[in-house]
Amino acid sequence: MASDLDVRSFSPTPEQFAWTFGGAAPIARVPSGAVLEVFTEDCYAGKVRRATDLVSEVCDFPFLNPQTGPFYIDGAEPGDTVAVHFVDLRPARDWGASTTVPLFGALTSTHLTATLQPPLPERVWIWDVDAAARECTFHALDSEHTMTLPMDPMHGTVGVAPANLEVRSALVPDAHGGNLDTPEMRSGATCYLGVNVEGALLSLGDGHARQGEGETCGTAIECAMDTVIAVELIKGVATPWPRIETDTHVMSAGSARPLEDAFRIAQLDLLQWVSASTGMSELDSYQLLSQAVESPLANVCDTNYTSVAKVGKRFLPSPSDLYGGSHARLRATAAAYLAAR
Amino acid sequence: MASDLDVRSFSPTPEQFAWTFGGAAPIARVPSGAVLEVFTEDCYAGKVRRATDLVSEVCDFPFLNPQTGPFYIDGAEPGDTVAVHFVDLRPARDWGASTTVPLFGALTSTHLTATLQPPLPERVWIWDVDAAARECTFHALDSEHTMTLPMDPMHGTVGVAPANLEVRSALVPDAHGGNLDTPEMRSGATCYLGVNVEGALLSLGDGHARQGEGETCGTAIECAMDTVIAVELIKGVATPWPRIETDTHVMSAGSARPLEDAFRIAQLDLLQWVSASTGMSELDSYQLLSQAVESPLANVCDTNYTSVAKVGKRFLPSPSDLYGGSHARLRATAAAYLAAR
Amino acid sequence: MASDLDVRSFSPTPEQFAWTFGGAAPIARVPSGAVLEVFTEDCYAGKVRRATDLVSEVCDFPFLNPQTGPFYIDGAEPGDTVAVHFVDLRPARDWGASTTVPLFGALTSTHLTATLQPPLPERVWIWDVDAAARECTFHALDSEHTMTLPMDPMHGTVGVAPANLEVRSALVPDAHGGNLDTPEMRSGATCYLGVNVEGALLSLGDGHARQGEGETCGTAIECAMDTVIAVELIKGVATPWPRIETDTHVMSAGSARPLEDAFRIAQLDLLQWVSASTGMSELDSYQLLSQAVESPLANVCDTNYTSVAKVGKRFLPSPSDLYGGSHARLRATAAAYLAAR
Amino acid sequence: MASDLDVRSFSPTPEQFAWTFGGAAPIARVPSGAVLEVFTEDCYAGKVRRATDLVSEVCDFPFLNPQTGPFYIDGAEPGDTVAVHFVDLRPARDWGASTTVPLFGALTSTHLTATLQPPLPERVWIWDVDAAARECTFHALDSEHTMTLPMDPMHGTVGVAPANLEVRSALVPDAHGGNLDTPEMRSGATCYLGVNVEGALLSLGDGHARQGEGETCGTAIECAMDTVIAVELIKGVATPWPRIETDTHVMSAGSARPLEDAFRIAQLDLLQWVSASTGMSELDSYQLLSQAVESPLANVCDTNYTSVAKVGKRFLPSPSDLYGGSHARLRATAAAYLAAR
Repeated sequence: MASDLDVRSFSPTPEQFAWTFGGAAPIARVPSGAVLEVFTEDCYAGKVRRATDLVSEVCDFPFLNPQTGPFYIDGAEPGDTVAVHFVDLRPARDWGASTTVPLFGALTSTHLTATLQPPLPERVWIWDVDAAARECTFHALDSEHTMTLPMDPMHGTVGVAPANLEVRSALVPDAHGGNLDTPEMRSGATCYLGVNVEGALLSLGDGHARQGEGETCGTAIECAMDTVIAVELIKGVATPWPRIETDTHVMSAGSARPLEDAFRIAQLDLLQWVSASTGMSELDSYQLLSQAVESPLANVCDTNYTSVAKVGKRFLPSPSDLYGGSHARLRATAAAYLAAR
Repeated sequence: MASDLDVRSFSPTPEQFAWTFGGAAPIARVPSGAVLEVFTEDCYAGKVRRATDLVSEVCDFPFLNPQTGPFYIDGAEPGDTVAVHFVDLRPARDWGASTTVPLFGALTSTHLTATLQPPLPERVWIWDVDAAARECTFHALDSEHTMTLPMDPMHGTVGVAPANLEVRSALVPDAHGGNLDTPEMRSGATCYLGVNVEGALLSLGDGHARQGEGETCGTAIECAMDTVIAVELIKGVATPWPRIETDTHVMSAGSARPLEDAFRIAQLDLLQWVSASTGMSELDSYQLLSQAVESPLANVCDTNYTSVAKVGKRFLPSPSDLYGGSHARLRATAAAYLAAR
Repeated sequence: MASDLDVRSFSPTPEQFAWTFGGAAPIARVPSGAVLEVFTEDCYAGKVRRATDLVSEVCDFPFLNPQTGPFYIDGAEPGDTVAVHFVDLRPARDWGASTTVPLFGALTSTHLTATLQPPLPERVWIWDVDAAARECTFHALDSEHTMTLPMDPMHGTVGVAPANLEVRSALVPDAHGGNLDTPEMRSGATCYLGVNVEGALLSLGDGHARQGEGETCGTAIECAMDTVIAVELIKGVATPWPRIETDTHVMSAGSARPLEDAFRIAQLDLLQWVSASTGMSELDSYQLLSQAVESPLANVCDTNYTSVAKVGKRFLPSPSDLYGGSHARLRATAAAYLAAR
Repeated sequence: MASDLDVRSFSPTPEQFAWTFGGAAPIARVPSGAVLEVFTEDCYAGKVRRATDLVSEVCDFPFLNPQTGPFYIDGAEPGDTVAVHFVDLRPARDWGASTTVPLFGALTSTHLTATLQPPLPERVWIWDVDAAARECTFHALDSEHTMTLPMDPMHGTVGVAPANLEVRSALVPDAHGGNLDTPEMRSGATCYLGVNVEGALLSLGDGHARQGEGETCGTAIECAMDTVIAVELIKGVATPWPRIETDTHVMSAGSARPLEDAFRIAQLDLLQWVSASTGMSELDSYQLLSQAVESPLANVCDTNYTSVAKVGKRFLPSPSDLYGGSHARLRATAAAYLAAR
């Protein structure tokens, strides 16, 4: 069966990274159904490697958050949806870096939440990442404390070219996906993204060995990643905001400011998805979801904030045919790939 | 051992309910260490009992969200903390009601997010609540759909008299607690509340058979509740925002608008609690929590929005002596009570 | 004619100040039509008198923003409106004080917009106030710069007891008025406040020799004030949010967070007032006001932010009978009082 | 003297309009000091001409808000500033159109402030614009009311290519300028814009015969415009956010959500501009501006909201050399041009 798989590998050279969604030429054409093995660099473009590598000194603004892609999905047109299934995510190095960045993060004033106060001190924490043991180890800088947390690899950034003729920095989350920074973007998840331009122009990057909900300090345990995805093109079905499906849950991700607008977007999109797929009225869906929904925050630090609305499939009446069964097909592709590897 | 317990029961008459935090005379004095068996009425003051009982018609504004209390905690003074342990929560009826309320909820304009649009239709959903089976069953109004969800009883409202000479409606969440509407306020949890006035003036109410994160439509599965709490007074320890401790987690609850401010408050308070109790610096605590924290939303519909910051104790270096071990003592009291019942 | 005036004077003793709206016993009963000569203390309760009087050291929290009142307006019942006309405002001393206050103001993190950064330095600026010349003079602390600005006296705080059984700190602006901090509350203006409790319980304070729009640093040129107001009770007319009328303009003041909600409240209330008084439809009023409105910010630092929507009467079709001509009657009363003084 | 002027005229063909800032090829190169006579089309691309031309039916999304430009300013490099002086603005037709647009505007839910409510009715108001009399006349749709307001022509949109490799829709206001929608962008004003890319790529459009502060319904009296600007390149001086200078005032325009962030940005930028140009410390500038500033809202409806911080030059100690005297030189150029016309 694995012999049927169309598996392709892409490991960009430094010149090949994309720094935006939209506005970058595709690095490859990919047919629906293909499996892509990709390397993604960390959000610092690999330049933060030790505690003395301060972001403000070693990084080359605006060349942050390099994306692997864009991939031109054959046949994709505005009004379609691209399904991206995360088959496997493996940190590519045995360490990851998290930092404070001047005037960036949730517990500091910023360029937008502008105050007269000086920025917080700039620091770099290098975490040990043990992919085999699936563990990440923290070393405090100001004391001898250490702490080991479970690894939970995810991609902070996945998206397509935006609508409205725009080109957005890879640091921005919005309706096109982008820098959503949600821990839900882990292996086993299928992300649905609405297509805005021919070929969709899919990119991904910003691997995290793990991340708390909200990405409070502005960065996760940032790491290069060896990732496998499987893609499928769903013709004639539009997706207004990024959606995620797993074996057990469906989710929508809203991105906006203030944070309550991100919440509203995600809740309303999930509600309308549930209403359309179950046949329940919008008001009945509003009621059921209000009692059943989980609302894990993604990021409260980026250009837009991102809130996820998430509900167990077991709490929904017969949502059997979401996106024509795309998730199940992609799961089968993933299983075949992993069995053959 | 149970014979040592100081157990008291309070089932208010309709005239005895409190509608505010602060400004109501205590209904009883309670010593530290006591166990309280209380009845709480639902947020509608029991007036919504069937699908035709529209809130705008049957409820008597501002007499909403009746509170059982306030209890005067002997010896409590400003600067102390009251610990409230939730021993047991049991829905008092075999049904619960959830409603839309005109210009209230997250997916509607409101009196504050004011628009020219008319309100959403007003509806009432009566859920079956099977306390023995620990199940709640939804019946759609516009179709034949039904769905059964796990019961997960909680109190939407618990608090003390506020600071700054204020009296707040029981519908308001803030630093004094109040209408936090977080599903984390379930049995097994200890809630720490800073004392602002002599006797603290503790009240609780607003039982929910279950609630989604964010309370999107504005109401949960609202139900009267037979609840048992155990209280302890912690002298000389201040608590700036409501905190929650369970056997496995510690949490802070921030309430404000916009929602990012509620998030910031909760994250900073948890950070400072962790820093103080572990000896890690604030910046190291910022880093560790940024990777370890969960951020479940509580409500995005009330006068203030509430965001919870939550972290597993296993992810913290030796936070052994939180509030002098109050949670463990209250757990022992709860166990003794339940064993004796 | 002046002999017909009912003129009363109130200069509170220190014990007579109110620190809240609601919850304070009235200091006098006042009939509709009366003229009140009052002394109001500054927001620091008079304790900041020189550059070394830091708020955090000399003020006695929560005893800030003392109010003169409350006045029980004879016959006022919930659903009525109290009109407060500002006849004359005169700074009572030849200086005023403005300060930074730790974690308070628009260009600093606060207890709600919580960050890890330390507060800004605490400073006190003593301005010269020359009431005869109608000038205020600034002296820079860190250089020799001075600057003289026109005096424009106003009351930061005027309000009635709030609805919903609440008692609010005098630092809070909301639907009951309170700490709106709008420069529009100057002599010649009539403020309309909806009555929530019997007697209305009107108070005022927080004089400013002048204030910029937004009160950016958190405080104006704060000064004690000798003020004259005239009050009128308007029976059977409700006022949902504070409104202001002058000879040339009508205004509404919305208070909420985030600031766009304060804006929405003010714009919608003005729109509905205009629609009701002119007979234009709501959508036509929306259109006309969108082109004609001024939107001066009041405060962006208090517990709620306040935004004012303001339109010239000459831009409105025949709004002839606003509040039954209350403003014109109060102007006549003011003229009579001033002529007789 | 006028013979020295370098005057150029540009009236774009329909194919020549730009729909973005960044990402469009320049239509002309322009030297510093030139005077440009331009035609700008209205924000509907001229497609709304009568009351039955509903935006959702006649407009061709995303081809909204056509910009005249971009102009490549000779010698402009990142880190420089382009000064754009508005010499003359004259509505090009004898009517202007304002509309409601589904889910757009301040008093409606939107795609971001997402609710379950249906959109407001879609309407078109055609205003008479009498450029000679400098008057605009409103005709109510639902009644016989009419109202004439003073004309006050302005450009809603002026900007340069954004930073960070981005291309933004012409509907977006941000640090690069764009769709600020402030009535302050009228004749006599000089707008300073920081250069992000070679040639700056200056465009303008979105003429308004007049606009209220906040652009509450989402659109102004939208009109095509015959406009004259004069441009100057200021080398080696960066401008972080758009600034405006008139003969009497200096201003900064901040754009963000929530609205308080737009306010903070504008206030802090004006403060830092004042501090740098007067030599007063930042804290002294904070104090002086807090008492002297005006804070007129620009828009509370666009992708970002825009708040202006404005202060009279007479309230500032000797700000004599702002941008090296650029405004005075451009005023002289404008005077020479107008004298020669």
